[in-house]
Amino acid sequence: MADYAPAARLRTALRHFLRESETVARAEGLTPRQYLLLLQIAGAEDGTTTVSQLTGRLVLTQSTVTELVQRAEQVGLVTRSTSPDDARVAHLRLTPEGERRLAAVHGQLKGERTGLRRLIDADE
Amino acid sequence: MADYAPAARLRTALRHFLRESETVARAEGLTPRQYLLLLQIAGAEDGTTTVSQLTGRLVLTQSTVTELVQRAEQVGLVTRSTSPDDARVAHLRLTPEGERRLAAVHGQLKGERTGLRRLIDADE
Repeated sequence: MADYAPAARLRTALRHFLRESETVARAEGLTPRQYLLLLQIAGAEDGTTTVSQLTGRLVLTQSTVTELVQRAEQVGLVTRSTSPDDARVAHLRLTPEGERRLAAVHGQLKGERTGLRRLIDADE
Repeated sequence: MADYAPAARLRTALRHFLRESETVARAEGLTPRQYLLLLQIAGAEDGTTTVSQLTGRLVLTQSTVTELVQRAEQVGLVTRSTSPDDARVAHLRLTPEGERRLAAVHGQLKGERTGLRRLIDADE
């Protein structure tokens, strides 16, 4: 039988990482998907992006991303402005409150990200 | 604002990895959790483990793991035998069919695991 121990350790580390990430996000009043939405907007070039670009980065359908963005707008985490190049395209950006919560969650997960990377490296 | 691009890329890579893993597992007739169950049993020392040990490695509750094991036993993926040291403890092991399906999924995900590790290293 193949050596399954490295793949098994990788999966356990991923499960811990995702669970901790959910716990920290919820403590800041964000669902796991809202946290990923804020992260992908802030992590995009110039801190702005579109729904189409987000579907690829979030690996979700366009309709799910559209709903996620609408809800985030309603609760004041995200704003949209019309693209100067194409009036049909909306550019998304974080509000100061969105930035504050993203920074809080991202900062608390620093140790988790480092731990995940270290474990993955150790299994090479 | 902090540089969120590395954390954003990590999350996109994780989403792709988990989605691909689910697709490959389902093509072999396994749910994502069944695949993880088989992987954690095979990845444990001597290829055998207990429900208690699995709860930590799968990051699931004991009752969820118990149900998962019962179902896997019913469909012929896992067998249990009483521990020689403690009659209340059952040792779990894969059946030949469980080994076959685990090997098929694990083999097909090799490229995905390598890609995930490479991307995580590139972000250091």
